[in-house]
Amino acid sequence: MTDLIRICQAASAAKYELAKLNVTKKNEVLLDTANRLMQHADEIIEANGLDMERAKAKNMPEGLQDRLRLDRDRIAGIAEGLRQLAMLEDPIGDVVEMKKRPNGLLIGKRIVPVGVIGVIYEARPNVTADVFALCFKTGNAVVCKGGSDAMNSNQAIVSVIKESLRENHITEDAIGLIADGSRETTREFMKMNQYLDLLIPRGGAGLIRSVVENATVPVIETGTGNCHIYVDEDADFEMALDIVENAKTQRIGVCNAAESLLVHRAVAETFLPMLEERLKKHQVELRGDQDAVSIFKGAVLATEEDWGKEYLDYKMSVKIVDSLEEAISHINKYNTGHSEAIITNNYQHAEVFLNDVDAACVYVNASTRFTDGFEFGFGAEIGISTQKLHARGPMGLMALTSYKYVIYGNGQIRK
Amino acid sequence: MTDLIRICQAASAAKYELAKLNVTKKNEVLLDTANRLMQHADEIIEANGLDMERAKAKNMPEGLQDRLRLDRDRIAGIAEGLRQLAMLEDPIGDVVEMKKRPNGLLIGKRIVPVGVIGVIYEARPNVTADVFALCFKTGNAVVCKGGSDAMNSNQAIVSVIKESLRENHITEDAIGLIADGSRETTREFMKMNQYLDLLIPRGGAGLIRSVVENATVPVIETGTGNCHIYVDEDADFEMALDIVENAKTQRIGVCNAAESLLVHRAVAETFLPMLEERLKKHQVELRGDQDAVSIFKGAVLATEEDWGKEYLDYKMSVKIVDSLEEAISHINKYNTGHSEAIITNNYQHAEVFLNDVDAACVYVNASTRFTDGFEFGFGAEIGISTQKLHARGPMGLMALTSYKYVIYGNGQIRK
Repeated sequence: MTDLIRICQAASAAKYELAKLNVTKKNEVLLDTANRLMQHADEIIEANGLDMERAKAKNMPEGLQDRLRLDRDRIAGIAEGLRQLAMLEDPIGDVVEMKKRPNGLLIGKRIVPVGVIGVIYEARPNVTADVFALCFKTGNAVVCKGGSDAMNSNQAIVSVIKESLRENHITEDAIGLIADGSRETTREFMKMNQYLDLLIPRGGAGLIRSVVENATVPVIETGTGNCHIYVDEDADFEMALDIVENAKTQRIGVCNAAESLLVHRAVAETFLPMLEERLKKHQVELRGDQDAVSIFKGAVLATEEDWGKEYLDYKMSVKIVDSLEEAISHINKYNTGHSEAIITNNYQHAEVFLNDVDAACVYVNASTRFTDGFEFGFGAEIGISTQKLHARGPMGLMALTSYKYVIYGNGQIRK
Repeated sequence: MTDLIRICQAASAAKYELAKLNVTKKNEVLLDTANRLMQHADEIIEANGLDMERAKAKNMPEGLQDRLRLDRDRIAGIAEGLRQLAMLEDPIGDVVEMKKRPNGLLIGKRIVPVGVIGVIYEARPNVTADVFALCFKTGNAVVCKGGSDAMNSNQAIVSVIKESLRENHITEDAIGLIADGSRETTREFMKMNQYLDLLIPRGGAGLIRSVVENATVPVIETGTGNCHIYVDEDADFEMALDIVENAKTQRIGVCNAAESLLVHRAVAETFLPMLEERLKKHQVELRGDQDAVSIFKGAVLATEEDWGKEYLDYKMSVKIVDSLEEAISHINKYNTGHSEAIITNNYQHAEVFLNDVDAACVYVNASTRFTDGFEFGFGAEIGISTQKLHARGPMGLMALTSYKYVIYGNGQIRK
């Protein structure tokens, strides 16, 4: 038996024990793990040092090195995340929508864990502790396939988690780590339907595409965001400027940052110069269509490719549209189903936009940057789903649950 | 461009129009389609006659021929199904769980159609009208890939549906039918992520496995049912006899029929002879473990294969267990996640069974035959899901919906 099968099988065998844990015990383990991560911080940093050395030797880009790096502050941040999860309500075991049928059967939906969740991610060791905590809080076993560049760091973190599980008399198989970084093992992992109930890819577009194309285990796509802001003819310009500036520049490397601006022709000549002025201090490169370029002082002409692009950078595409309908159909053509906003004071336009734009989150008069589990009040986030099944938009603890129907009878048979 | 791509693309282009239809219009179309099916019954029966001729010529098994056959009564049944769907509430557009955030954002979940749903099924032409009606009522476009043995029947039915759409000034692309029955086309269909949002296989185990293994479009597995009944030591014997007889024999070819019986050792010697007597009139073949066989007058010894078998026949495997825990772990090992029942008067045992059995539907003191969208009060059913994501158990109209977050702001930006 390969290591991969052994790990997945062990996680699957652990799931029934985990499903039965009460919330007090689960919270104790999360708090204990947080403490132990701090106690073992030196070992974790040492292991991370090995990964960093190799990363430097192979000239890993600075941004990726930064995501890989752990220090005492960052470990404290990870521990704090675990403590916050311990404070959240546990949905497992609740029964909802219970109904009495005419034949006397009482039928309700009991919230249950999904079972075993596989997570595939890049060289970001904080994700290891994070997904363990989210899965454990919801009674799921987790099997981690982290980027191989973070292998030493991940092993050190998983070893601390397993120590905490052991000391709390809970199966260590609540978390599994796949050490083999080969492409074949990763592909095999994606087809472990016998043991895995769900696969969540966390990372860039390439990783997600590879999982969607190769997995036979059900996947929740967490996504890239080509987010638009449409400034309507009835927009409040000051509000529009604040929101566009915030959505574009408050943090550029995130999926809910705005990448594209649509402006109604009736206000383009007034609004675009104000916008150019506002964004100057951030040195945002504007890539406009023919008409927009002629209004801006210094914009580049956009190509077809720009409309579909998630820049994750100080760049923004700008298009002038003749109507609300044109804005909506442009968005529905080029967006990635993430977050879209209209700035308007027109009631009818707001309603049409909310109705007709096809995306996980549709905003009126607010920044797309709010698409986030914490901002939505979930207290935690496993990712932002850009698909339509199971969970859409920011995913909190409920996204890691399923339900089963529980049926209370007193001898009913079917006629 | 191939026909397949053209059909899927057209469905995808139609989805925004369909999502906006109001429920009155949708119901009018369903009722109109029902009427037209009756008006065109002769043409449909004629087309079906061509399929039946070919089926006979190739010696299609009687049971499959029966599923393929259409007559005036059956078409009336299909029409009646459409009329019933017109009576149901439409969930599309409802906003649920709306919350006010501390920053003033009002965030709610608006129920929306999934988009484009692909359905792959066998040579059962009634399914064509059925899935159209379910998808249309929930504002989805549907692309049908029916068994090629029913192609003439399906084309006749789809042509009536398209006539109704046309006459009601709605895009005919609300339904697409893939006429090419080749295996390559079916596989290509399963990978149409660009156009399809969801794929539902309806059919036997082989069909479902092939879809799960080959699809890159998200799938809802509708399932086979290896359903168990556990007769506890505290069971009421008369109730147990009624329920086992009902679950095993009321209809044998359905996924919620019981296939396996577990009996606590303390009551096996009393209960099993009563059961054998009760099932005699149905000529149920009992396949027992060593101990059960020694109690029955005429049972066959079960092999390992029997425990995992969905007979869909007058057969039942029987195992004696020493405890509730053994019953539960046997069920969790061999079941297909469909429907499981305990017969007991012991409160504690009932609760443990409901908690620990891993299945879509878990019953106390009732027949597994109730696992059905109509019996659950959904008024319709697209299938019974045996997976844990999105929808589990009987799926009504809600299973064909997704949601999007709608966010009402007044200028909020993220700090």
